[in-house]
Amino acid sequence: MIVALSGGIGGAKLALGLSHLLDPARLLIVANTGDDFEHLGLSISPDIDTLLYTLAGLDNPDLGWGRRDESWACMETLEALGGETWFRLGDRDLALHLARTARLRAGESLSAVTDAMRRRLGVGPRILPASDDPVRTRLATDQGELAFQDYFVRRGCAPKVRAIAFDGAAASRPAAEVVAAIAAAEAVVICPSNPFISIDPILAVPGLRAAIAATPAPVVAVSPLIGGRAVKGPTAKMMAELGLPVTARAVAEHYADLLDVFVADPADAAALAEVGARIVAAPTLMRSLPDKLALARAVLTAAGVAVAAANPVAGTAR
Amino acid sequence: MIVALSGGIGGAKLALGLSHLLDPARLLIVANTGDDFEHLGLSISPDIDTLLYTLAGLDNPDLGWGRRDESWACMETLEALGGETWFRLGDRDLALHLARTARLRAGESLSAVTDAMRRRLGVGPRILPASDDPVRTRLATDQGELAFQDYFVRRGCAPKVRAIAFDGAAASRPAAEVVAAIAAAEAVVICPSNPFISIDPILAVPGLRAAIAATPAPVVAVSPLIGGRAVKGPTAKMMAELGLPVTARAVAEHYADLLDVFVADPADAAALAEVGARIVAAPTLMRSLPDKLALARAVLTAAGVAVAAANPVAGTAR
Repeated sequence: MIVALSGGIGGAKLALGLSHLLDPARLLIVANTGDDFEHLGLSISPDIDTLLYTLAGLDNPDLGWGRRDESWACMETLEALGGETWFRLGDRDLALHLARTARLRAGESLSAVTDAMRRRLGVGPRILPASDDPVRTRLATDQGELAFQDYFVRRGCAPKVRAIAFDGAAASRPAAEVVAAIAAAEAVVICPSNPFISIDPILAVPGLRAAIAATPAPVVAVSPLIGGRAVKGPTAKMMAELGLPVTARAVAEHYADLLDVFVADPADAAALAEVGARIVAAPTLMRSLPDKLALARAVLTAAGVAVAAANPVAGTAR
Repeated sequence: MIVALSGGIGGAKLALGLSHLLDPARLLIVANTGDDFEHLGLSISPDIDTLLYTLAGLDNPDLGWGRRDESWACMETLEALGGETWFRLGDRDLALHLARTARLRAGESLSAVTDAMRRRLGVGPRILPASDDPVRTRLATDQGELAFQDYFVRRGCAPKVRAIAFDGAAASRPAAEVVAAIAAAEAVVICPSNPFISIDPILAVPGLRAAIAATPAPVVAVSPLIGGRAVKGPTAKMMAELGLPVTARAVAEHYADLLDVFVADPADAAALAEVGARIVAAPTLMRSLPDKLALARAVLTAAGVAVAAANPVAGTAR
């Protein structure tokens, strides 16, 4: 089995590529839950949802979040009622939050809820949260301590980040099967997600970092930076604020003790000599489905995972 | 001030009539909260909402609940996700529940939330819950003990009712101002709502029945039955199941210790002799806005409340 650690959009793109190349039973996606929050009474899991929608072909390519073919009657009305509308919830997207909230309140685990939603949406590979226990990313910034979505959505990542913490992580337990899956994996893939707010909350769950360090399987990370810039999101800005060089090399060094292979864009590969991992150069910008497939294939090849040579895909740009 | 006790649709129709005849500051509507429940993580107050929508002119005349010009994208998606859709929540209606839930969780009282929503929706008269504390109607039926909405919506009032209880009522306190408003009222109006599941939960809040019994103001109830039949809802069926005659007289006797005046349809007035209240005959079927105004005028006149003789109203059937 291939175990892929993923945050939201960038990670979901590679996960989609992997899902096209692998039998569904051979792929397990472990999702970041540090972005999760309770809002308007609802339990919202943004990265899980981005993975679900992307793998179901329901993602909204224009927004980069939420569902395609969405309507906004509820948000329009909520605005008229003076409610909080900074976190945009489409009418159809709301249904997923209502379904999840009801199931969690009825005592189901986030793992079980996520699996039920995956099946309902026709997604083949399994998606599990890193933990069923709450892990909540909190940022120390120049505007004070901020909950993740307050920083990320409400303030549009404008505050300068000084430090990052994962509330609840120390007491959390890995979701069932995740540690065993890592131990028995053919490969562990760290998707091109933000290392600090998408992957680190996963690694902060006690036992997960150790499991990845101990697995005999190759651990392959994909750089979220291309030529010192993030494709989307605050990775580059955040690295600068944290006093790190804004380079693929700094990302590789962040994961250093875990990595066997680091996949970086050809533009960055030359500067990665002497990083303690094998460097594989591959185009990491994923605009189209063929881009995603090509990167997924490069990642699997780098991990020594056999994949059928020709996998006809009907898709065009997505 | 006129204090009107109301449940959902029937009571809201009379409340709308009263709102057209009275200065907004002269009308206080006390709403049943026995129907309230928590569903899909949301705090839902059906009777308050029916009052809000009706007085805002946003009620859905075809459905008899919810908002007009509604869309159902969320419910459609929730159904596809295997969520519970027996309680239909329109996309715009959902916004009210989200706004309420967020405010309640932030520590506001149901009174404060209801008042904020009333202002946002442009409703003039104040609407207050009978209590800010939870009062939840529960029914003993031939299908077991049922929460109110399980009986009312999910099972369509099909179970036979043996007894009715109001969980939490004994420990509840009247919402601020309600007792004082009743004591100082010009009149107290018991709207043509179901006596057992719409008015009794209000009267079950300690202090409210006593306040109504003690007020020097005339107490006027309007029969929800016309010729032994309910206009809408399970009143008649429920009375039969509870072993009561299905008559306006039995309704009057149910309120006996509180009533000064009982307003009944001309079809029923003759059979009401010797009830311990003055009987006023007036058409109680409210199909159009003029119907509602006429009944409201009859109620106020019966209570000795002066109302301007000519109140031009532009409305047609609603």
